[in-house]
Amino acid sequence: MKELPIHIQLHSKSDKTLYEQIYEYIRNEIRAGSLLQNEKLPSARYLADYLQVSRTTVDMAYGQLVAEGYLEAKPKRGYYVSAAADHPYEMEMSSPGGEAQYMPEEEQAAFAYDFSPNAIDMRFFPYATWKKITKNILVDAKSSMFALGEPQGDIELRTTICRYLHGSRGVNCEPEQIIIGAGNDFLLLLLEKILGRHIHVAMENPTYVRAYKIFRSFAYPVTLVSMDENGICVDALRKADAQVAYVMPSHQYPTGVAIPIGRRIELLKWAAEEEGRYLIEEDYDSEFRYKGKPLPSLQASDTHGRVVYIGTFSKAIAPAIRISYMVLPYPLLEKYREECGFFSSSVSRIDQTILNEFIRDGYFERYLNKMRKQYRMKHDFLLNELKPFEKDFQISGGSAGLHILLTDTKDRSEEELATLAENNGVKVYCMGEFRLDKSEKEPEPATMILGYGGLSMEEIREGIERLKKVWL
Amino acid sequence: MKELPIHIQLHSKSDKTLYEQIYEYIRNEIRAGSLLQNEKLPSARYLADYLQVSRTTVDMAYGQLVAEGYLEAKPKRGYYVSAAADHPYEMEMSSPGGEAQYMPEEEQAAFAYDFSPNAIDMRFFPYATWKKITKNILVDAKSSMFALGEPQGDIELRTTICRYLHGSRGVNCEPEQIIIGAGNDFLLLLLEKILGRHIHVAMENPTYVRAYKIFRSFAYPVTLVSMDENGICVDALRKADAQVAYVMPSHQYPTGVAIPIGRRIELLKWAAEEEGRYLIEEDYDSEFRYKGKPLPSLQASDTHGRVVYIGTFSKAIAPAIRISYMVLPYPLLEKYREECGFFSSSVSRIDQTILNEFIRDGYFERYLNKMRKQYRMKHDFLLNELKPFEKDFQISGGSAGLHILLTDTKDRSEEELATLAENNGVKVYCMGEFRLDKSEKEPEPATMILGYGGLSMEEIREGIERLKKVWL
Repeated sequence: MKELPIHIQLHSKSDKTLYEQIYEYIRNEIRAGSLLQNEKLPSARYLADYLQVSRTTVDMAYGQLVAEGYLEAKPKRGYYVSAAADHPYEMEMSSPGGEAQYMPEEEQAAFAYDFSPNAIDMRFFPYATWKKITKNILVDAKSSMFALGEPQGDIELRTTICRYLHGSRGVNCEPEQIIIGAGNDFLLLLLEKILGRHIHVAMENPTYVRAYKIFRSFAYPVTLVSMDENGICVDALRKADAQVAYVMPSHQYPTGVAIPIGRRIELLKWAAEEEGRYLIEEDYDSEFRYKGKPLPSLQASDTHGRVVYIGTFSKAIAPAIRISYMVLPYPLLEKYREECGFFSSSVSRIDQTILNEFIRDGYFERYLNKMRKQYRMKHDFLLNELKPFEKDFQISGGSAGLHILLTDTKDRSEEELATLAENNGVKVYCMGEFRLDKSEKEPEPATMILGYGGLSMEEIREGIERLKKVWL
Repeated sequence: MKELPIHIQLHSKSDKTLYEQIYEYIRNEIRAGSLLQNEKLPSARYLADYLQVSRTTVDMAYGQLVAEGYLEAKPKRGYYVSAAADHPYEMEMSSPGGEAQYMPEEEQAAFAYDFSPNAIDMRFFPYATWKKITKNILVDAKSSMFALGEPQGDIELRTTICRYLHGSRGVNCEPEQIIIGAGNDFLLLLLEKILGRHIHVAMENPTYVRAYKIFRSFAYPVTLVSMDENGICVDALRKADAQVAYVMPSHQYPTGVAIPIGRRIELLKWAAEEEGRYLIEEDYDSEFRYKGKPLPSLQASDTHGRVVYIGTFSKAIAPAIRISYMVLPYPLLEKYREECGFFSSSVSRIDQTILNEFIRDGYFERYLNKMRKQYRMKHDFLLNELKPFEKDFQISGGSAGLHILLTDTKDRSEEELATLAENNGVKVYCMGEFRLDKSEKEPEPATMILGYGGLSMEEIREGIERLKKVWL
């Protein structure tokens, strides 16, 4: 091996952990150009020996640097400095995560480690690319760009989304079926006008609470339908006598259940049984799946035009991108045109054009691939850190999305577990918050939700370390 | 007088009119720097003599150059090249107007001269400034900028809007009373959730048709209330037994009526008479007023918390700016928090930040001042061109906004007048389109609506010339 290119002075009295010191030293060397592209780093074992630290400390530092794109791990060959293009040099982020749900700052600051299932990782967002696209669009901007666009959204963006949805989610639709709106909530407000009054809605239990509140604000009667390991129970749904079922077939929130094809066919059959029945498919984080092949959407299997497909770029790109889309089956598209065609577009043409180029020119796909790797790494890391918990908890929901579930086997309550964690500076979430039908016959076992999207591996490790002390 | 700095070669065989040739020559000289800042131009009379053209031709060219900010007219001293800062150099616009209401391109192209009351003039929009602000914001952008903001809108922007509304419209409110949303339609959708079901709405007749359709899509019963020269008749309103009245007190659309203070007090008294009564004040184009002092908002006179004030930046800045605001009185703010607090913000933080800086740093005020001058000039020009129409039409509605009304005195129908115009390539609008209560006892005299916001003075002149041929 050639001379060691790492001359780290570790300070045991520093505020920073040894892991952080190693991580920062190497990162700064790469940024400064002292470590060159494609240069090989010493093996983790060798560096640990040399620095007299544990192998885990070096592994974590290398892991973080790989996660952040500074290093590349080549199987059986070791760690190399990545090609410059991938370096997230452009900016220092003040916060590691963007919140997919708005949270006042006081609340955010209260906990050292917040395992929010809504947080996402914005460190790798290609700000430079986004800026470049924005700049180019504004340079070429004509007055038409500053004019009001079509109510449904610009046809260019609708065409791009149509192609993307078909390729990635198997969605079958034409651009004319797509409605672009400023967030899912706006689209649901339109959907109310399309579906009409007094629509009886069935939802999975537990479910996405904001959607529940929104349906209730429409004065829609809502029936919560129980789930089994294959998702919403179609028998119970049939008994509920609802017109519309709101489901998250690819990764139910918060249970993480993915509905298998058999149950999907039952669901679609239910919808086709009666005139005016529809399934609203909320496909909020289908981009991130770690086990098996990505599941196509429910809409992909729909041959009767009974599925309203709703998705958003808030999770996959950034919460600030207030652009969601809704794919309407033809009978509802007709009603949209009659009942809602006069509602102005809620997204500026400039923002639509930026997003269109971001997707069309392949940046979105690249970013998604990077984030899939990121989240998979965090996911694997978290599951590994949770090994000691397996004796007291059943761990589930880990095949997709950005959170996993810990179900207590020792008869403690969710409140008890949450309080223990909070007193130790860790925020975790209770499944009970998502169970809207509180009057159920027997209490469910305590299930805690741990989101990892917004935390770094170091934060995950520290947070789990603290949970270990109070939960095990 | 020093040597004439104008050496125009006029071509009588050119496609372009003499006016256009003079206008373009001087504009290009200024752009090229051949005519310097603060340089004096020859007097119109002198130049007309020199070029052997009519004085009107030169007047029109100078007028257009003043309108576009290339020249300044100094009273009793003549025309000077403006200081460079004001020159709209930055870009050539492909189209003179931005549409405040979406219109498919086929429709736009069908007429040589479209007197749309919704069109605005985007030629002077400070694109360069907007780009600069956008660029700076993106350079400094932290992940927080790409995060989801507060549901009501960022407090910085709400504070800025609050200050602006107080200063320019006399609106009395706190930033916490302001809800920012992606367009007026979105805000009305929220307002439905705040007001609740089965709200009986009264509207002026004629009125803004989209708002009518939106209320009807809420299944709100709507009563159309007649107007006199002081606006909505409060006796008729009282008889309608409505809970909410939707009014445009500063410049009614489309009649152009401004409600005087006496009638305003009656209206406010009506609202205060019963629990739960509200006035929705739509202040869509109050920025542009040509006669007398600007009227303060109705909200400014409200001492009982009965006015919901709604405004937008789509008209005063650009239709693409999908940012509107609603000021809620406290009882409704409380209901907003209960019923709608969970609806996510529909405007991205980036867009909010750009707009905030645009207003806060004085660019908005400057742009408004420029546009007020622009529109006033077009307004005066149009009224002047319409002088020959005074024998056949009564001309009104010209004290504010971007359109005027021509009421026929020769018993022709609106359809007849519109068809005559259209056959000659001119699109004008019929008051009848805004009268929703078609079953009225006696037919109103034909009133044609001529918007001038999106047309250049040359286009106004040509369009009116054509109308003269078919209407007089």
